[in-house]
Amino acid sequence: MEQEKKQVEAITSMKEDFAQWYTDIVIKAELTDYSSVKGCMVIKPAGYAIWELIQKQLDERFKETGVENVYMPMFIPESLLEKEKDHVEGFAPEVAWVTQGGLEPLQEKLCVRPTSETLFCDLYKNIVQSYRDLPKVYNQWCSVVRWEKTTRPFLRSREFLWQEGHTAHATAEEAEARTIQMLDVYANFCEEVLAIPVVRGQKTDKEKFAGAMATYTIEALMHDGKALQSGTSHNFGDGFAKAFDIQYTDKDNKLSYVHQTSWGMTTRLIGAVIMVHGDDRGLKLPPRIAPTQVVIIPIMPNKEGVMENAKKLADSLKAKGIRVKIDDSDKRPGFKYSEQEMRGFPVRLEIGPKDIERGVCVAVRRDTLEKSEMTLDGAADSTAELLDTIQKDMLEAARAHRDAHTYEVTTYDEFVDTINNKPGFIKAMWCGDQACEDKIKEDTAATSRCIPFGDHKAISDKCVCCGRPAKKLVYWGRAY
Amino acid sequence: MEQEKKQVEAITSMKEDFAQWYTDIVIKAELTDYSSVKGCMVIKPAGYAIWELIQKQLDERFKETGVENVYMPMFIPESLLEKEKDHVEGFAPEVAWVTQGGLEPLQEKLCVRPTSETLFCDLYKNIVQSYRDLPKVYNQWCSVVRWEKTTRPFLRSREFLWQEGHTAHATAEEAEARTIQMLDVYANFCEEVLAIPVVRGQKTDKEKFAGAMATYTIEALMHDGKALQSGTSHNFGDGFAKAFDIQYTDKDNKLSYVHQTSWGMTTRLIGAVIMVHGDDRGLKLPPRIAPTQVVIIPIMPNKEGVMENAKKLADSLKAKGIRVKIDDSDKRPGFKYSEQEMRGFPVRLEIGPKDIERGVCVAVRRDTLEKSEMTLDGAADSTAELLDTIQKDMLEAARAHRDAHTYEVTTYDEFVDTINNKPGFIKAMWCGDQACEDKIKEDTAATSRCIPFGDHKAISDKCVCCGRPAKKLVYWGRAY
Repeated sequence: MEQEKKQVEAITSMKEDFAQWYTDIVIKAELTDYSSVKGCMVIKPAGYAIWELIQKQLDERFKETGVENVYMPMFIPESLLEKEKDHVEGFAPEVAWVTQGGLEPLQEKLCVRPTSETLFCDLYKNIVQSYRDLPKVYNQWCSVVRWEKTTRPFLRSREFLWQEGHTAHATAEEAEARTIQMLDVYANFCEEVLAIPVVRGQKTDKEKFAGAMATYTIEALMHDGKALQSGTSHNFGDGFAKAFDIQYTDKDNKLSYVHQTSWGMTTRLIGAVIMVHGDDRGLKLPPRIAPTQVVIIPIMPNKEGVMENAKKLADSLKAKGIRVKIDDSDKRPGFKYSEQEMRGFPVRLEIGPKDIERGVCVAVRRDTLEKSEMTLDGAADSTAELLDTIQKDMLEAARAHRDAHTYEVTTYDEFVDTINNKPGFIKAMWCGDQACEDKIKEDTAATSRCIPFGDHKAISDKCVCCGRPAKKLVYWGRAY
Repeated sequence: MEQEKKQVEAITSMKEDFAQWYTDIVIKAELTDYSSVKGCMVIKPAGYAIWELIQKQLDERFKETGVENVYMPMFIPESLLEKEKDHVEGFAPEVAWVTQGGLEPLQEKLCVRPTSETLFCDLYKNIVQSYRDLPKVYNQWCSVVRWEKTTRPFLRSREFLWQEGHTAHATAEEAEARTIQMLDVYANFCEEVLAIPVVRGQKTDKEKFAGAMATYTIEALMHDGKALQSGTSHNFGDGFAKAFDIQYTDKDNKLSYVHQTSWGMTTRLIGAVIMVHGDDRGLKLPPRIAPTQVVIIPIMPNKEGVMENAKKLADSLKAKGIRVKIDDSDKRPGFKYSEQEMRGFPVRLEIGPKDIERGVCVAVRRDTLEKSEMTLDGAADSTAELLDTIQKDMLEAARAHRDAHTYEVTTYDEFVDTINNKPGFIKAMWCGDQACEDKIKEDTAATSRCIPFGDHKAISDKCVCCGRPAKKLVYWGRAY
């Protein structure tokens, strides 16, 4: 028990220090490591395998909607970055610049892409001539660089992995429809795969993407009550098309500008998974992104029949497409249990001589720690079912937590009191004036997360900040 | 027929100008596009989909051997790059330097990774303590940057995509075994998936990787008789371990240096596929990496039953796991045929009213242009079989071409005459002295490609260059 306790005690408790709890999990579950490049992370096998499962399932959803993958250069010439005024203002302060290639200084400096709108515009300008060339629905999986001052693994680092979709359409309606379609893909992916419920909505002008006409977002609530922007989808209208001169001839032989969108999701989703689902024992992975869904722990593995039965069990699970491994190391069972909990594998199956005699094994769920018995014959089916149940229950647990930490407030005092004492989402009315957003941010460090989609009944007819007539319901919160 | 002819005539013939033929295919099959970043390419959907199929199948083969994927930073601090003397000398002249992050100059400049040995060493130094931590068999899929002066799509560009495996082992024997194992994975992948036969062998000291103790290579022969290095695997011994101080405690509690390897394959494989298989009609894709394996071309699609039958046919092929699409555009059939040939789809199925009456369709192989008839009922099975046949036949055709263009020579005059008049691999004896490699390169632009594995009977007992006693049989050739 000593080793086991050490392992568990080694994680700081959430309540004591959430930030330290997060760091402990990231390091002890071996998701990332520090690198000697300041602000950049090493993503280790346990972390990268999660990303691979995210990539695979998100990419399949993209392709079902007609997305085609491409690869664009990682560098952007300064003159190209500068073509769209708002865009360069938003990104120039945080890009890394290459000034020397080989032994010689470059004639024009190149930034390492912080995002690739300008490169895609440059391509579309060349390959879009006629309405027959539209739409273009391209995406790339790559890394991008933003020179952040303070960094945290997955949540904010100078380099991160993501996908960025960039599309060009004949009409404004089509561009808007694609922007919303991809936001829906993101929201459904978060709920169905990551078991994270999200609020869909529109960013205020203050919070929208540099160069966008409209930015839509999905916002998730972390266990500590802070919000995490989990995916964004931007409608550029024809602003970039005008800056880059991307025109096509329509059916009547008339020249028109294309309408564009972009949308992205990043490795910060792994941070969201940690902070939505994790607990003081460690990581909790939803089955659909768990590289190991089931770990089989043989009890007294040297007793006759134990390892044979464990292997037979593993094979029957594999045949169902379950990602399973046997922990046959020489550590004691108790240590292996804590390790499973720390690493977040959704199910462990314990199998010892007595179980085998009775033709059963014991299943322990990582999410609820509940135990149940399964017959060895039926274990593959029962485990598949259990994984589905866990996937659903984790979403519902996260939704219950989110709903329990969403507060409606009507007065400024209440707003300040809530943000300070009951961390979570605050729903409150807003007049539409950026001055109120600025004041709220300065007073409370909370920002407008989004104006939620759908019909919402007004909480009050006054702006929570200035008391003037309210125009919109807004989700507010402190955010990562 | 006009449009069709135009399409075909638009490719320069191989014989006339091989380099222009290559460029024509890359552009007209829409594999890449030019970018406004000098020396960098845009990989378009048709090209990137090939890369995705390469990645998927190579990655599966890696994982079967225990490889784990990770992601390392794209930047290397100058001081880290400089730790291994030979390595930095090899790479420093061709790296791109980041000197500014955000609005401020960096205290230490960072190079954009040209390869990541130094970063992996830095990681292994931290995470390898005991023999229990070994082996480490990590790989990453990413892009790297080398500031080349002259560039060509896929073959040589300032940024390219690749995978780089980096391993650390307890013993020299284990490291050597892994180096050879991965070379074999590469060779089998080239033959079984890309239908490209390769020569496996060792690089001479002159040609080996900067910092390696031994470099192994697979060399393929292109249609124009030039060689293409298609994958390399390096054994570093404990050279990097000593430079980076990567030590572990063995079972007897004694400190030892680890032994390391690295191995990589790149997007230049797509260049190899073009130059090994292509012809004057365009690209020829081996079925296993063809994003579209079968294109169905409905003849007189407006006639009753044609589109229905084409769709039924497509569905039956899809159910077999065949990647199929229907070309239902309003272009004429002849144009669609040339387009299929240009884009290299392995099979086209033509289906018209008369075929449907008889319950058949017509299959045309891209590799041989042979036609055959298939019953509609049996088309899915017949097509699956045909794709297997094409895959095998393409490998055999490439092997026959390679063997017919491999020459054994014993005198220097013969060497020079062969390289100038019969482009291909030259097998010739070598004394082991770099001076002879240098002279051959200066006189003929040919380089030593490799010292082939296995027992080869000596062609002569004298070095083909200097006439002194010969030590090794070497494959020579002009190379990309």
